Amino acid sequence: MIKVGIVGGTGYTGVELMRLLAQHPQVKLEVITSRSQAGSAVAELFPNLRGKVDLNFSEPSAESYRNCDLVFFATPNITAMLQAEELLESGIRLIDLAADFRIKHIPTWEQWYGATHVCPALVEEAVYGLPELNREAIRRARLVANPGCYPTAVILALMPLLANNLIDSKSIIADCKSGTSGAGRSASIGTAFCEVTESVKAYAVSGHRHLPEIREILQTLDADADLVFTPHLMPIIRGIHATVYADARGSADRVQSLFEEHYRDEPFVDVMPAGAHPETRSVRGANTCRIAVHFLPEANKYVVLSVEDNLVKGAAGQAIQNMNLMFGLDESAGLEAPGMIP
Amino acid sequence: MIKVGIVGGTGYTGVELMRLLAQHPQVKLEVITSRSQAGSAVAELFPNLRGKVDLNFSEPSAESYRNCDLVFFATPNITAMLQAEELLESGIRLIDLAADFRIKHIPTWEQWYGATHVCPALVEEAVYGLPELNREAIRRARLVANPGCYPTAVILALMPLLANNLIDSKSIIADCKSGTSGAGRSASIGTAFCEVTESVKAYAVSGHRHLPEIREILQTLDADADLVFTPHLMPIIRGIHATVYADARGSADRVQSLFEEHYRDEPFVDVMPAGAHPETRSVRGANTCRIAVHFLPEANKYVVLSVEDNLVKGAAGQAIQNMNLMFGLDESAGLEAPGMIP
Amino acid sequence: MIKVGIVGGTGYTGVELMRLLAQHPQVKLEVITSRSQAGSAVAELFPNLRGKVDLNFSEPSAESYRNCDLVFFATPNITAMLQAEELLESGIRLIDLAADFRIKHIPTWEQWYGATHVCPALVEEAVYGLPELNREAIRRARLVANPGCYPTAVILALMPLLANNLIDSKSIIADCKSGTSGAGRSASIGTAFCEVTESVKAYAVSGHRHLPEIREILQTLDADADLVFTPHLMPIIRGIHATVYADARGSADRVQSLFEEHYRDEPFVDVMPAGAHPETRSVRGANTCRIAVHFLPEANKYVVLSVEDNLVKGAAGQAIQNMNLMFGLDESAGLEAPGMIP
Amino acid sequence: MIKVGIVGGTGYTGVELMRLLAQHPQVKLEVITSRSQAGSAVAELFPNLRGKVDLNFSEPSAESYRNCDLVFFATPNITAMLQAEELLESGIRLIDLAADFRIKHIPTWEQWYGATHVCPALVEEAVYGLPELNREAIRRARLVANPGCYPTAVILALMPLLANNLIDSKSIIADCKSGTSGAGRSASIGTAFCEVTESVKAYAVSGHRHLPEIREILQTLDADADLVFTPHLMPIIRGIHATVYADARGSADRVQSLFEEHYRDEPFVDVMPAGAHPETRSVRGANTCRIAVHFLPEANKYVVLSVEDNLVKGAAGQAIQNMNLMFGLDESAGLEAPGMIP
Repeated sequence: MIKVGIVGGTGYTGVELMRLLAQHPQVKLEVITSRSQAGSAVAELFPNLRGKVDLNFSEPSAESYRNCDLVFFATPNITAMLQAEELLESGIRLIDLAADFRIKHIPTWEQWYGATHVCPALVEEAVYGLPELNREAIRRARLVANPGCYPTAVILALMPLLANNLIDSKSIIADCKSGTSGAGRSASIGTAFCEVTESVKAYAVSGHRHLPEIREILQTLDADADLVFTPHLMPIIRGIHATVYADARGSADRVQSLFEEHYRDEPFVDVMPAGAHPETRSVRGANTCRIAVHFLPEANKYVVLSVEDNLVKGAAGQAIQNMNLMFGLDESAGLEAPGMIP
Repeated sequence: MIKVGIVGGTGYTGVELMRLLAQHPQVKLEVITSRSQAGSAVAELFPNLRGKVDLNFSEPSAESYRNCDLVFFATPNITAMLQAEELLESGIRLIDLAADFRIKHIPTWEQWYGATHVCPALVEEAVYGLPELNREAIRRARLVANPGCYPTAVILALMPLLANNLIDSKSIIADCKSGTSGAGRSASIGTAFCEVTESVKAYAVSGHRHLPEIREILQTLDADADLVFTPHLMPIIRGIHATVYADARGSADRVQSLFEEHYRDEPFVDVMPAGAHPETRSVRGANTCRIAVHFLPEANKYVVLSVEDNLVKGAAGQAIQNMNLMFGLDESAGLEAPGMIP
Repeated sequence: MIKVGIVGGTGYTGVELMRLLAQHPQVKLEVITSRSQAGSAVAELFPNLRGKVDLNFSEPSAESYRNCDLVFFATPNITAMLQAEELLESGIRLIDLAADFRIKHIPTWEQWYGATHVCPALVEEAVYGLPELNREAIRRARLVANPGCYPTAVILALMPLLANNLIDSKSIIADCKSGTSGAGRSASIGTAFCEVTESVKAYAVSGHRHLPEIREILQTLDADADLVFTPHLMPIIRGIHATVYADARGSADRVQSLFEEHYRDEPFVDVMPAGAHPETRSVRGANTCRIAVHFLPEANKYVVLSVEDNLVKGAAGQAIQNMNLMFGLDESAGLEAPGMIP
Repeated sequence: MIKVGIVGGTGYTGVELMRLLAQHPQVKLEVITSRSQAGSAVAELFPNLRGKVDLNFSEPSAESYRNCDLVFFATPNITAMLQAEELLESGIRLIDLAADFRIKHIPTWEQWYGATHVCPALVEEAVYGLPELNREAIRRARLVANPGCYPTAVILALMPLLANNLIDSKSIIADCKSGTSGAGRSASIGTAFCEVTESVKAYAVSGHRHLPEIREILQTLDADADLVFTPHLMPIIRGIHATVYADARGSADRVQSLFEEHYRDEPFVDVMPAGAHPETRSVRGANTCRIAVHFLPEANKYVVLSVEDNLVKGAAGQAIQNMNLMFGLDESAGLEAPGMIP
């Protein structure tokens, strides 16, 4: 059994990690910490876990994780970087579900996150935890930067196009729609039920932190790649729908088969038949990114539709997939539940 | 491996059976029939099952189920009774998720369902599939009548009160709120998004088919029992919340502990601490009925709050629990996933 | 033109008052105060009011309201009572949309609101602003206590039964379902979108502040009246659905016509035909309480279904109806818009 | 008083016309027809109109409208064209809320709507009822083609850019998100609550009927204009959010002021301040299109955000605005209610 800890388990990625780990046959959750909830039962905060997780939240401390093989950081940004070095030195492997290790270019990170990075060497070492891109490196990693929710959906939509040189990589527009759980579990007017439901809006049109993350990864695939990224807030709990536009280059005849080939062996990317329109609900609770590619001949553009559950393939599920790789387990262990319709 | 078939798998109980069976370690889904969808892939209708269920819908026929140990009827009412005899005679065991075998008193059934029952002897034989009430009989049953969604929530709320003679059994009021999936997967104005969302209403106040079902079961526990039952339609997909009122008899001092004792060994009934208010979302996707009991001293009444996922403990999950009992499997097999919050 | 002010206009009753007053032909909104938002434009906080309300929020102060004929308190509880005396003395009439003047029995108020009341004499003077009960007194009132949202729906459901001595007034159960806007506009986890949507729960089963308010008013109609009151939180913005149960006394033959007669001349109470089930959406945005009465002969009980928009007939609309009465305007002025379906 | 009739009033545009007309000071609704509901009360189908609209649905016939000055067609496509000639000849003016007269190029219309047009001469005569584009022609029109919901939002977003030659008019992408009421009031699985809520999807990516409509109108402004148009279905009742992308030409310095100038005198287009993000709920129930324009300097693109209520400015409200123009009334009569927040 792999022994794991969770730092900061009172948010939505924390409870989702616990929901999924409770179904994992080879993992034992040893400890979950929370400064604010220390001492209280996990199942009191999250009654869905009654009878499934019997731990109390404990105070975070250097000692807390000493029995763990792996620690997940389900914390706000700028938390993992303060503790990563000490934990790694004691032989614990880390997966950060926040953004501290996602962007290699330190000045860019510092500009977007408004802080000085305290461990640039670990950023250098960290592996961007998108298995479809970095599977082998993840297997060997001590420190994995779990991708953002939007970047996962957008990058997976674009990888076959870039790999096959099918688009003008400067022409990308990613119009993305996200459920509200992406904003985290916090008391704020902006995410109140009466403010969110029965409404749709764009936000951060002038720039969102996931933009430099997506851009940097795309540029590892094509040095010229760049994009416009527009996030929108949807009145749903879970789900991201990325609608990705790009100008076509050359013939589009083989695009469907190229997508199918690209992801043939991927357990968690599902390429739909030509002409399909994926729904976010089809991946609710599941670790799947479901993709359909369309070609518009008159406009000579591709439109790729990509959906995921932002808390699963966009966060906790992908983190467990990474854990499975890091510890030589079946990559799908604990992640096989289908999506929930209706 | 138990080999199972599903009759009529295009509705919400059908897809939920498949979602849960796909995670069951000891079941093989052999066949799923649908007159309207025969020939098309299950995963085309329900894309959450892509890669999880590789069957096509097939024409229903006597031959379809010949390899099955068990067949689930996920059909409309007045379907299973037409085929039950033939299937049972060929040695197949049956679980009907509709209402054909739930009510023992044939004239009552015929009055509420507007049809003549064609196999009263099977009604006599059938076991009402509420494991908390009939576990031993279910183990031996050839034919199980899976309870209605409302009855499951209401009966489980009342069993400890009736068993301990704590209430005036004629004073029961069950004010119930249900998600819209309880109305089934069908094209109707009344369940259209724009008609249901952002609204609440009662329906069938003068009488709902689940009333005689609840009444008959309660009267097996207390011959005098009767109730008022008011269903309400809620703008949620899944979930029933039963708010059950009854006049107290005698002292209420031990009610919390009596509930806890009553359900101590039940894997799928969770009694919350005194003073709690269960939320339907805490059992989303899970086979749990979660209950809290309140006593109001001024009014000398109990108020029992009981929540379930109408498609799981209220339908497909309970059916699988019954199957597990009928075949000597671990009662919880395939049913251990926690509810999904958020 | 009546000149009005609003104290504390950053909540949902505040914005709803402005939405409705913007359509009122005989009212001029002079001033709206908010400590937290002083200086900023109303339409910046509430973009639906762009081009409709050109005021800025101003600092609350004794001077703010000097030009007003009437001031609405759309503030939290325990605010209006601190300023009422001074404003009344300067000749301004008041409508408090909070609870400071709703309960005549001071010890009861103090117990439920956890504070010492500073102006019991004004409580004595205040008129409970339910026009269907107190129309003439409201016309003459200096100070109106606008009823709570739940009390409005429940009391209107019961008035014809009590007035005609049709029920055992000790047997009342009011099972109420409310939209989330009833909890106000505030940053809290409990009202976050991801916590509320797709779920239903009861709350405050052991006692809610609207219970003593309803009880006191009912007892003015029938000294023996008492009730059980159970509120539930619904994933809708607006709407209260009260399902009210009571034991019948005598014959129920005339109940439908008695309801129709009781409310025949009421502009804002709509009695539906026998057998109907009102939907909350039918009164969305409208100042209507829509009622249907059912009699269950087997149980010898009445079930009254009563719906309202908690922000309109349950708050701001009723306040404007009261204002119209106080100033001799057409009672329906500014309140004639139909509900919004879909 | 203008006397109006409504053909086919059982859908969402029909009920919305009635909701708005009930508040119009200079209109009398004379007749509303429906083949399926003839004889039954309007207020039975739409209980929000109880006490507001006292008509019954009547059989459609040549006689039905003889007293009307104007008839609205709130019918499916391919209905108005069959009756338009006869009505116009009898001196009645028409507004068609469906698509029969929106597209001038008959072969295009016939290709997208799959029918032969029976009155091309009337298409020639009809005025496209977007007041911001065709106000003077609408005043004189006998026959107005009320624009589609998506076209209204997209065209209003683009008009200032095209009028000022600020974009490459071939580079337009309109990524649009619509509420479910846009699909009409009908019994279909695809718009069922449990299929729509908690999910987001694109549809008709390969081509939607509003594409040729938008394209034809844009080309009247700029002969080269073309666009990619992607509609998405949102789990909200009302609201369209158009996110419109286009490559910038020349300097973007004055774009904000050019938008403000362009719409300065428009009563129903609201240009928000620079940097704003309009929400669909801010126009819920209101006849407003609210717009914000963003410039992305790195990408050299404009992103215009445009929201409307698809049933109001996108359908019934715009139709009444057109009626007001046609009959010389105040353009805003009956349309002044603010949007509803929350």
